[in-house]
Amino acid sequence: MSRFSFNQITAKHWELTDMVKGLVESGVDKVALWREPVAEYGLERSAALVRDAGLEVTTLCRSGFFQADGWLDDNRRAIDEAAALNTKVLVLVSGGLKEGSKDIAGARQHVADAIAQLVPHAAAAGVTLAIEPLHPMYAADRCVINTWDQAMAIAEQHPVGQVGVTVDTYHLWWDDTALEKIAAAGERVAIYQLADWITPLPAGVLTGRGLPGDGCVDMRSFHEAVAKTGYTGPIEVEVMNEELWQLPGREILAKTIAGYQSII
Amino acid sequence: MSRFSFNQITAKHWELTDMVKGLVESGVDKVALWREPVAEYGLERSAALVRDAGLEVTTLCRSGFFQADGWLDDNRRAIDEAAALNTKVLVLVSGGLKEGSKDIAGARQHVADAIAQLVPHAAAAGVTLAIEPLHPMYAADRCVINTWDQAMAIAEQHPVGQVGVTVDTYHLWWDDTALEKIAAAGERVAIYQLADWITPLPAGVLTGRGLPGDGCVDMRSFHEAVAKTGYTGPIEVEVMNEELWQLPGREILAKTIAGYQSII
Repeated sequence: MSRFSFNQITAKHWELTDMVKGLVESGVDKVALWREPVAEYGLERSAALVRDAGLEVTTLCRSGFFQADGWLDDNRRAIDEAAALNTKVLVLVSGGLKEGSKDIAGARQHVADAIAQLVPHAAAAGVTLAIEPLHPMYAADRCVINTWDQAMAIAEQHPVGQVGVTVDTYHLWWDDTALEKIAAAGERVAIYQLADWITPLPAGVLTGRGLPGDGCVDMRSFHEAVAKTGYTGPIEVEVMNEELWQLPGREILAKTIAGYQSII
Repeated sequence: MSRFSFNQITAKHWELTDMVKGLVESGVDKVALWREPVAEYGLERSAALVRDAGLEVTTLCRSGFFQADGWLDDNRRAIDEAAALNTKVLVLVSGGLKEGSKDIAGARQHVADAIAQLVPHAAAAGVTLAIEPLHPMYAADRCVINTWDQAMAIAEQHPVGQVGVTVDTYHLWWDDTALEKIAAAGERVAIYQLADWITPLPAGVLTGRGLPGDGCVDMRSFHEAVAKTGYTGPIEVEVMNEELWQLPGREILAKTIAGYQSII
């Protein structure tokens, strides 16, 4: 369990203070936080809360969405929030196409340009930008970066430690070329996240992910690939699932830990 | 309109005889048929119906599903059905993982092996097997062949004309490497199908496709890539959409033709 980190979205409706208490009581010492609940509780209060509880914040989720107006200011704020939380990794979800656009190549180039603009601010704050390739089913409306290759091509334009890539089993499991490339990515692996693929997908395809072990992802092969990079950092379980969210937070945490232990 | 082919699934609830009449009255001379409605009306009767109406059957959709028991016999029957309909192209959707399996690499190898077993029968019948890479969101439950590369790697183990690949804009639009590879695929393009990507996706993600022009796919780039191969064959519009299906067949056909003409 030494590498386990509980990603806050897995218990979306669990209040931050209750979650921190629940994690500590379960002996969990790592958490990934989301910007919205942190903002709601207050950035400084959240930072104090997790610090006083002895929790390491493995990532702040999430910034990016470079197709939106005001993306630059918002991403700069996200970097500052990560630094305030003493988080070393800010997860970036690139955003989709602008309303009415058919220019996905242009949108992808814009993502690369936008990240280049953010790097100096992130580097100064000591925050690694972790580009997350999302499953191709999100290409239109959520994230135009859909493969390991695309994320790496952007990351490699910048020094190691300033820009990395998020390995998320849910988004990459289908890609027959991904494991070999992950294994060769060395220090570019910024964070490693687990979720399983279950079907049928729900409407909107956002909230139908499975706990590790509940689906068809060959987690063992992912672990081997990630291990080959030398990455020994935290392993987050990040599951968005409407049914799971209906359970009490402590029950979700218990199930998440059980899922994690079933495959690690 | 000389290359336009109406794929039967686009008007799922339109009776075969009515559809044939509607196509002829609209001056459409090509149709793609589906196995289930053909079987329901009777194979020989269906063949006579389309032949007497002067319709060319551009593809028979669809066979494959190699994870299922009895796949070999079923696929041989599908080849015979294609030949009986005087169709030169049988579309293959590979099928997903077996219940409970996490071995997608093994499933993919099985698809390659299964197709190799079918090729002699297809070649003898004069039917091209058109492997269709389906969007990665179908990898678990519908089709483990998810990229142009995967389909081509299987096709290229066999002579041109015996095994080819289906270009379907809906399944390939997100892939930044696909267009260049399609353009270089020469005679491996067995059929070209249009559908557009619209969001949000419905539950099950099967019946939320858009008519050409209604979504975010850059169809012009696809046309250019396909043109570079030398492919001058039929262009099918194949849309599965629950709302569209509720309309009368003639209205669906009119909308389909309008969508086709908006982008061709």
